[in-house]
Amino acid sequence: MRAVDILRKKRDGHALSPAEIAAFVAGATSDFWTPYQVSAMLMAIVLRGMDTAETAELTRAMVESGERLDWSDMAGVAVDKHSTGGVGDKTSLILAPLAAACGVLVPMMSGRGLGHSGGTLDKLESIPGFRVRLDVPEMRSVLEKVGFVMISPTDRVAPADRALYHLRDVTATVESIPLISASIMSKKIAEGIRGLIMDVKCGSGAFMKTREDARALAKSLIGIGNANGVKTEALLTAMDVPMGRMVGNALEVKECIEVLRGEGPDDVRDVSVELAAKMVRLGGAAGSLDEARRKVRHALASGQGLERFRRMVEAQGGDPRIVDNMDLLPAARQRMVIRAARPGYARGWEAERVGRATVLLGAGRNRVEDKVQPGVGAVVLARPGDPVREGDVLLELHYRDDDRLPGALALLEGACPIDDAPPAVGPMILEEVS
Amino acid sequence: MRAVDILRKKRDGHALSPAEIAAFVAGATSDFWTPYQVSAMLMAIVLRGMDTAETAELTRAMVESGERLDWSDMAGVAVDKHSTGGVGDKTSLILAPLAAACGVLVPMMSGRGLGHSGGTLDKLESIPGFRVRLDVPEMRSVLEKVGFVMISPTDRVAPADRALYHLRDVTATVESIPLISASIMSKKIAEGIRGLIMDVKCGSGAFMKTREDARALAKSLIGIGNANGVKTEALLTAMDVPMGRMVGNALEVKECIEVLRGEGPDDVRDVSVELAAKMVRLGGAAGSLDEARRKVRHALASGQGLERFRRMVEAQGGDPRIVDNMDLLPAARQRMVIRAARPGYARGWEAERVGRATVLLGAGRNRVEDKVQPGVGAVVLARPGDPVREGDVLLELHYRDDDRLPGALALLEGACPIDDAPPAVGPMILEEVS
Repeated sequence: MRAVDILRKKRDGHALSPAEIAAFVAGATSDFWTPYQVSAMLMAIVLRGMDTAETAELTRAMVESGERLDWSDMAGVAVDKHSTGGVGDKTSLILAPLAAACGVLVPMMSGRGLGHSGGTLDKLESIPGFRVRLDVPEMRSVLEKVGFVMISPTDRVAPADRALYHLRDVTATVESIPLISASIMSKKIAEGIRGLIMDVKCGSGAFMKTREDARALAKSLIGIGNANGVKTEALLTAMDVPMGRMVGNALEVKECIEVLRGEGPDDVRDVSVELAAKMVRLGGAAGSLDEARRKVRHALASGQGLERFRRMVEAQGGDPRIVDNMDLLPAARQRMVIRAARPGYARGWEAERVGRATVLLGAGRNRVEDKVQPGVGAVVLARPGDPVREGDVLLELHYRDDDRLPGALALLEGACPIDDAPPAVGPMILEEVS
Repeated sequence: MRAVDILRKKRDGHALSPAEIAAFVAGATSDFWTPYQVSAMLMAIVLRGMDTAETAELTRAMVESGERLDWSDMAGVAVDKHSTGGVGDKTSLILAPLAAACGVLVPMMSGRGLGHSGGTLDKLESIPGFRVRLDVPEMRSVLEKVGFVMISPTDRVAPADRALYHLRDVTATVESIPLISASIMSKKIAEGIRGLIMDVKCGSGAFMKTREDARALAKSLIGIGNANGVKTEALLTAMDVPMGRMVGNALEVKECIEVLRGEGPDDVRDVSVELAAKMVRLGGAAGSLDEARRKVRHALASGQGLERFRRMVEAQGGDPRIVDNMDLLPAARQRMVIRAARPGYARGWEAERVGRATVLLGAGRNRVEDKVQPGVGAVVLARPGDPVREGDVLLELHYRDDDRLPGALALLEGACPIDDAPPAVGPMILEEVS
C-alpha cells in the first residue's frame, strides 16, 4: 500500500479504509512515510474531512501506536472528564477528588495551556513541589492510595499523537474536527478508562463558537469513544465569560480549594458537581444520575473531596499545607485594577480577551517553549448582570512585568461593557449530548 | 512572513499575495521552509486552487528561482511550442525545423515520457549518438548554426520547478491546473522565448478529457504566458486515438523523417504545419497566418525542413545518416500483429491503451528511474473509419521481451472495436484559444 495512493484517495474526497488509516499512522510514527507525505495527508484531511468511522479508526490506530493502560485489576471503574478548553476552566481539580471520593477511579492525563485557554498541568505546577511527570508504577500507586491522579501523558501514551501534533502545529493543520477529536480521544482512550464525560465549551471564548459546531464536535468525540470501548457522553457548557472569578494558575488552584471548602463561585461548583456526577454514574458507583449528584454533593459538603485533593497533592510531591494556608501558593506582587467608567449593569468580561491578556502577562504561553509565571492572572469582579456603580472595580490584574501591562490593558479595553439594562444571562450548562 | 500563516491563508481558500507566493517558492528552494510545509502548501493549492493572477505570480517566482535565457542579440525572434502530451504526438521534431527554416529561432527544451504519453527527449535519444544535455554556450552555438535546438532543461532553468516536482510526485499533488500550468510555463518562459503556441490535447488519451477542461487549461497557460511577456496562443487538438501511425521512440523519429520528406500520415503533417505556421506568425516572420502557412508548406515541400533536421541531428552529436537510411535507427526484432476478428469499420485504437501497452513493452517509463527501449513500439494500421476485412492487421507491436507481451495484449484487448457502420470522424484541430 503506497503512501501516494492513500494520499490520492483522501485528496479526491474518498473515505479511507481501516488498513489505509493504519498505514498512515504507522507511517507517521516510523520513517516509512516521509514527513512531507504525512503533512500532505494532514492538509488533505483538514480540507476533505473524515467521517465518523474513519475518525474512530484514526483514533484506534493512534492509541495502538503506544500503550493502553489497564486498571481492571483495581477496585472501582476508571472514568475521566475532558474539557475542550476555556478561560478560568478549573473544574478538573474539583471534580476528580469528588468523583474519587464517590468510588470511581480517575487516572487523569491532562495538557498544558496553549493560546488563550489554560491547562491543568500548569495549574497543578503552581503548587510548590508538585510533580506532573510520573511513570506508570508511580501513577498506579497514587491511584491506589488516593483514587485519582493528575499527570501529563506518559511517553508511551499515543506517540502517534505527538508525532502528528508536531507537524500540525507548523503546517496550519490544527483546525480540523477529525484531527482534534482523534488527538483528544487517543490520549483519553489510552488512559484505560471505561467512561468519559466531555465538557465541550461553546461560545466566543471557546474553540467552537456556535452551538452547532460544538454539537458536531461532541458527536464526533462520542462516536470515537463508543467505537473504542469507552462509554462517552458530553455536556455543552457556555464559554463567553471566564468561568468563576479566578484566571491564572495559582489563582485558579486557590479558587478550587475554596469550592472544595464549600465556598467559591456557584458556576464553578455547579458545573463541577454535574460533571463529577456524570463520572460517578458512568463508573457505576451510583444507580442513577440523581443518586450520583447526591453522592457528589455529600462528598463536597462533608469535606471528603477536599481531603482527597490534599492527599493527591501530597502523593505527587506537592506541599499539602497549601490547602489550609493558601498564602503558600505563589503570587504576583503587582496589582492593577480596572474600574467602571459609568454606572449600570455589567455585560460580563469577554473570556477570550481576558485569556489573551493574562497570557500576555505571563499566565500562559503563545509558543510551546514559553515559561509560565504561576502567580500571574486576573480576578474577575464583574459577572454578567451584576449592577455596578461608577468607579467599582471590574477586574484586578496580578502581574510581575511592568513592560507587559500596557499590552494587556489594551486587550481589555472595552472588554466588559456597562449597559443601562441588565443583560439576558443564560445557563452555564447548555445541553447534554449522548 | 511565517510559513504557517501563508499556509493557513491558502488552506482557508484565500488568494495569496505576490510576496506570499515569492516566500513559498523561495522557501521551497532553500531550507527556509521545511519539505513538510511545502507539501502541505501543495496539497492546499490542489484542493483550494489558485486564480490566474496567483498562478502567473507562482510561475514568475519559479522562473526567477533560476536563469532566464536571452536571445535578443540574435537574428530572428525566439518562439516555441509545447504539447500537454499524448500518444504518438511527435510534432515537435517536424515543426521545429520547419519554423526554423522560415526564419524564427526555436530554443526548445523538452521533457521525457512519463505515464502513457511519450516525451521528445526519449525520441531524440533513439538517434545514435544524440545528446540532449547541452550547456548554454553549446545551445547557443546550435541555435546560431541551425536555427533550432532540442535539449533537456539546463540545471539553471527553474530549479524551483524541480524542487516542487520532486515533492508533488510522491505526495499526490500532481493533478492541479495551477501547479501544472506553472510547471510547464516556468520552463518555457525561462527559455527566453517571445511567443509560444500551446498544443493542448483533449480526449480520452489526454490528461484533459473534456473540451471544457482543455479550454480551462489553455486559458490558464495563455494568462500566465502573457503576464510574463510571452505572447501565448493555444490550439486544442484531439487525442482519442494515437497521432499518426507510429508509437514508440525510434518508430516516431522514422515517421517524422517521412513527414519531412513529404510522405507520412496526413494528421501528423497537418497539425505540425499549423503549429509551425502559428510559431512563424508569433515570431513575426510572416505578416499573416496565411502567409506563414505558405512559408511552412514551402519549407516542407522544398526539403528545407528535412535539411534543417539533418543539421540539428549532426550538431547535437547524432548520426545524420539516419535521415537517408532509417535502418540505422534502433529496432526491436520481435513482432506480434493484432488482426480484425470480423469485417466492418474500425472505430480507431484507444490512445491511452496503446500508450500503456507500449510503455509496458519498454517504450516508456512508469517510474522516473525506468530505462526506455528505443526500438519498442507499435504501428497503428487501423485509423478511425477505415474499412477492414476479417483477418486484416489492425496493429503491429515491435517488442523485445516475451515476458511483457501478455500484459500488453491484455491491455489492447477490445481497444479497437469494429462496427458495422463507419464511425463519425471529427477534425484533429478542435478549436483555437487566444
